[in-house]
Amino acid sequence: MSNSRRLRLALFGSGRIGQVHARNVAAHPNIDLAIIADPFIDGARRLAEETGARAVEDPEEVFAEQGLDGVIIGSPTNTHVDLISRSVDHGLAVLCEKPIDLDIQTVLECQQRLQGTTVPIMLGFNRRFDPHFSAVRSRVEAGEIGRLEQLTITSRDPEPAPRGYIETSGGIFRDMTIHDLDMARFFVPEIVEVSAVGSNVFSDDIEELGDFDSVVVTLRGSGGELINITNSRHCAFGYDQRLEAFGSEGLLSASNVTPTNVKKYSSAGTEESSPYLPFFLERYVQAYSAELEAFAHSIRTGAPCSPSFEDGVTALVLANAAEESATTGKTVTIGKA
Amino acid sequence: MSNSRRLRLALFGSGRIGQVHARNVAAHPNIDLAIIADPFIDGARRLAEETGARAVEDPEEVFAEQGLDGVIIGSPTNTHVDLISRSVDHGLAVLCEKPIDLDIQTVLECQQRLQGTTVPIMLGFNRRFDPHFSAVRSRVEAGEIGRLEQLTITSRDPEPAPRGYIETSGGIFRDMTIHDLDMARFFVPEIVEVSAVGSNVFSDDIEELGDFDSVVVTLRGSGGELINITNSRHCAFGYDQRLEAFGSEGLLSASNVTPTNVKKYSSAGTEESSPYLPFFLERYVQAYSAELEAFAHSIRTGAPCSPSFEDGVTALVLANAAEESATTGKTVTIGKA
Amino acid sequence: MSNSRRLRLALFGSGRIGQVHARNVAAHPNIDLAIIADPFIDGARRLAEETGARAVEDPEEVFAEQGLDGVIIGSPTNTHVDLISRSVDHGLAVLCEKPIDLDIQTVLECQQRLQGTTVPIMLGFNRRFDPHFSAVRSRVEAGEIGRLEQLTITSRDPEPAPRGYIETSGGIFRDMTIHDLDMARFFVPEIVEVSAVGSNVFSDDIEELGDFDSVVVTLRGSGGELINITNSRHCAFGYDQRLEAFGSEGLLSASNVTPTNVKKYSSAGTEESSPYLPFFLERYVQAYSAELEAFAHSIRTGAPCSPSFEDGVTALVLANAAEESATTGKTVTIGKA
Amino acid sequence: MSNSRRLRLALFGSGRIGQVHARNVAAHPNIDLAIIADPFIDGARRLAEETGARAVEDPEEVFAEQGLDGVIIGSPTNTHVDLISRSVDHGLAVLCEKPIDLDIQTVLECQQRLQGTTVPIMLGFNRRFDPHFSAVRSRVEAGEIGRLEQLTITSRDPEPAPRGYIETSGGIFRDMTIHDLDMARFFVPEIVEVSAVGSNVFSDDIEELGDFDSVVVTLRGSGGELINITNSRHCAFGYDQRLEAFGSEGLLSASNVTPTNVKKYSSAGTEESSPYLPFFLERYVQAYSAELEAFAHSIRTGAPCSPSFEDGVTALVLANAAEESATTGKTVTIGKA
Repeated sequence: MSNSRRLRLALFGSGRIGQVHARNVAAHPNIDLAIIADPFIDGARRLAEETGARAVEDPEEVFAEQGLDGVIIGSPTNTHVDLISRSVDHGLAVLCEKPIDLDIQTVLECQQRLQGTTVPIMLGFNRRFDPHFSAVRSRVEAGEIGRLEQLTITSRDPEPAPRGYIETSGGIFRDMTIHDLDMARFFVPEIVEVSAVGSNVFSDDIEELGDFDSVVVTLRGSGGELINITNSRHCAFGYDQRLEAFGSEGLLSASNVTPTNVKKYSSAGTEESSPYLPFFLERYVQAYSAELEAFAHSIRTGAPCSPSFEDGVTALVLANAAEESATTGKTVTIGKA
Repeated sequence: MSNSRRLRLALFGSGRIGQVHARNVAAHPNIDLAIIADPFIDGARRLAEETGARAVEDPEEVFAEQGLDGVIIGSPTNTHVDLISRSVDHGLAVLCEKPIDLDIQTVLECQQRLQGTTVPIMLGFNRRFDPHFSAVRSRVEAGEIGRLEQLTITSRDPEPAPRGYIETSGGIFRDMTIHDLDMARFFVPEIVEVSAVGSNVFSDDIEELGDFDSVVVTLRGSGGELINITNSRHCAFGYDQRLEAFGSEGLLSASNVTPTNVKKYSSAGTEESSPYLPFFLERYVQAYSAELEAFAHSIRTGAPCSPSFEDGVTALVLANAAEESATTGKTVTIGKA
Repeated sequence: MSNSRRLRLALFGSGRIGQVHARNVAAHPNIDLAIIADPFIDGARRLAEETGARAVEDPEEVFAEQGLDGVIIGSPTNTHVDLISRSVDHGLAVLCEKPIDLDIQTVLECQQRLQGTTVPIMLGFNRRFDPHFSAVRSRVEAGEIGRLEQLTITSRDPEPAPRGYIETSGGIFRDMTIHDLDMARFFVPEIVEVSAVGSNVFSDDIEELGDFDSVVVTLRGSGGELINITNSRHCAFGYDQRLEAFGSEGLLSASNVTPTNVKKYSSAGTEESSPYLPFFLERYVQAYSAELEAFAHSIRTGAPCSPSFEDGVTALVLANAAEESATTGKTVTIGKA
Repeated sequence: MSNSRRLRLALFGSGRIGQVHARNVAAHPNIDLAIIADPFIDGARRLAEETGARAVEDPEEVFAEQGLDGVIIGSPTNTHVDLISRSVDHGLAVLCEKPIDLDIQTVLECQQRLQGTTVPIMLGFNRRFDPHFSAVRSRVEAGEIGRLEQLTITSRDPEPAPRGYIETSGGIFRDMTIHDLDMARFFVPEIVEVSAVGSNVFSDDIEELGDFDSVVVTLRGSGGELINITNSRHCAFGYDQRLEAFGSEGLLSASNVTPTNVKKYSSAGTEESSPYLPFFLERYVQAYSAELEAFAHSIRTGAPCSPSFEDGVTALVLANAAEESATTGKTVTIGKA
């Protein structure tokens, strides 16, 4: 299979994340976006017009389409499992946004159903493709800091999602921390213990919903690595996405991203950086492109997807363990997969 | 005229800089590369194949082509003036690499010949389009640092070009400093005085050719602004491209660019940045794209080009003045254009 | 009592930390070092000669001395409680190195015995006096980042102490983390919960002694604040002492300290900082001076000491809780004092 | 002569700079301040009381005093030459604030008069003792960046001195740039050419006085080194004192100094440093102490002073050359001393 074979994809969902994927596919030199499926047909139509795709209401039209190579699932979480299964049944490669589902039973059943398939399934943990984080990881793998001992992940959203979103989000661990849990596994694939502490320090809304607005999670890897995740649902200075990998021979850090490296010096402030890129759409723009590229590569070559469906399962297992730990005050041991 | 009208361009020259332009055009969603003309037909053919263009040996084929909107001139310097004139005669918009010519008389004659034309002519001073430098300039224009008083430009190449290149380059002022002179004019359009000091500190080759390997140039703007340019033909830590704008109310700086913001801490070094992007092809990759965009915009809307042909003339006048000053030890006054 | 009244102090212990204190007192314009007591009389004599003090073997000579204002206790940990009690009995103000004792019972008995005394007793948690950390704390107190929500403390020693030291150190929580626990309380005085995870990732020696070489501790403050401490007994790039205070309106960070702000750029590394100050004697040199000043201030004015004896008790309680949590995998709740 | 022999000094002048020296001497463990001479006896008395010295009106009392080792001259510029000569006649070592005098003839006559003396005479170019700048210089000397090729000095005062001060200051080159000219010579002792450009961009007062408010000076060293100095009499973000040494194998930079390394992140600004130390009294506090130490060392050991009287002469020669160049628009060649 040639590495530059032209691919045809369909997209489920024309919301915020669907738009990111649609535009990336449209801009790609040798991937075409054939169909955008969304029951909210108006949004699908607008996006289809912009990207040269066809808008459809009914997902069945995707499965009826000839000559498709794969699908990108950016529809609501509760549709993921069904769309994954049906796509795989039709031999369509899948790039599915996280999480697979909020319910671990549903996820495990889906996993069982998919057992043995050779159709590529990739989970949308986009941060693995961020050039800064992935450079740290490559350099750790290359041995630049010796053996990895500690990993510190800081991840704060600029401001909480609306109450309605939080309500159905599955809680901070499954909605927000899950990205950091996958990032932890990007560096330390096997996690054996999870401790978490949650707190409510600024949002009455979130507290009323029985969720935390701030959490700290500590993981232990199978090699004794200690991983620390700090989350907050708000951050006055923008989207705070940082990482430090500490090893026996040094440390590698990735810091926040500014649109330019311009600094300002005035009576009001010294060496002020440009404001950080505001949120994930801006911060991870390169990551989404690289993710699409990796997905295309797996379709073309059959190379295993990373992050895989299993990575999606494990992230949810860890999120559930974190929630349990934060609730019970006890460290939760993770069994072998 | 719609702002997204599809454009067809031709390219003269398939060397290093020609390749940059060819690939940018090929990757652009609504600009097509129709023809690549180069007497070294093999290079033209390889590039044409890669970018979907047609390769020709004879520039006349470009002028014979129907439906072209403009040309990009990336051929050797001594072909520029002729290609500009002929393109304009054929009503083709021109994006010409710097310098227009090494000889000011030739340039002035060309300027006279072009007088009154409404065909867009843009000079390839790509650095005006660098996001870091252009952000500083926009913020200066927006008044963030009050009135601009001093501008400090540092510009060092990673290593000298081969002796053969230096020999026909027109000397450091016309070949290298000319970019910084245009950058100075990007901030302070009217320069009234030029002083320069040149030195030979590391290259016997360059000295034998009667050229300098290191220079410092001081300009005075019509508002009394003092602009300082420091150049070296080599730089052990890579391509050094920085700028500081100092005004009555503060300073804005643009520093060197790294591929990621990863820092390393080890026993061998503390807070080490990633190496800087190596040379202009990497450092100014965004600038070349933005330059093409601006060129397309001028073609579509008739908006005046910046940098213009006149900017190319003035940069050469200043380079000549700098050389004269470095040779005579006297400040050179620049007359009104 | 005048604020510049000349003070006379005695010092117990002429080891590494005793030398720091002796030299600070000797260099102080209006504090004199009268006596240095150490059964290892040779070390005491050398230090006494250098600092203009009298060396004695027997601590009783200190208590027999007339005209002393206070003592600094830098002798081995197991002598602290007795020396504190006796000094207070003699009306001598006390600056005692941490910890008060490794055994909480002994500490609590000592606390009871001291109940009601008005003699100043200060605990040597020197980091409260570090200009960088104390600037962050003052600015947090001043409301610069709104309400404090999260505190992240990174603290790594350049290399493990010798096995013999570790053996009697009381373990990493009571020996090393205790400083960070006090730093946490410098920002959030009332801690209500402690979770900790320990690991052995690099030192067989430490593992054999039943101690951890790496730990992560999470504290919850009474206002819901989440505090995170990361420790390692080694660090390839030197002494790693950093802190971030995150609040509702921003973040304040204090980073590692270099002897100068010189940066190096070469083919081997870009923007390399000078190496960090190697260990606590260098890193906290200003802190030890400021600590002495604060101690003198309390002696002269009767102002309450900060950190106080009670701060020393609480730090030990938290260190014990961290050890318990790391051992049992359960969050430990801290009762009201 | 022992290296710790107690020294007795006298001070001429109890103004701003006199106070710096008086307090440094008073704080020094083995240097005493015996006398402070100033016709404005009130100031002298206040300072004498604070530092334990004796205040006198008449400088003759200094020369009549027995057992003095040296003098520090911090009186008005026009008294320097006479005080230097008389001090040397009395065998008193001299630390004299810059400049020796504003008139080169007077300075050269003084130089002739001093010929052959073995009494230590040090010029107060305090910046040579700044730990940041001197670290750069030591590392350049150690060969860390190969052969020095270019030196860039940025030096901006926070705000112009009062009109009255400017009026008698001798002009920006002799008053302000002279420090940077000496800094240039700290790295490149032999300067062979001086070019300068001056401008008036913000101060009508300074323009009326026939002085510049902003200048750029380019020097050439005897090895072809190019040195660039940028000055402004004002700077919105504080005292701007920076330096970059560029060599065949890299670059070393020294940047502005903040009281702590705390950074602030808020909605109003990102990664804001603490404000820079405001002016020379704060910025160069360590430099003044190290200067005193070096002076004491020369007195005790007879080691040659650096900066020497000759360094003071040369700095004035260069300042005069810069003024000439700025006025005539011609590069000025410096003859061999």
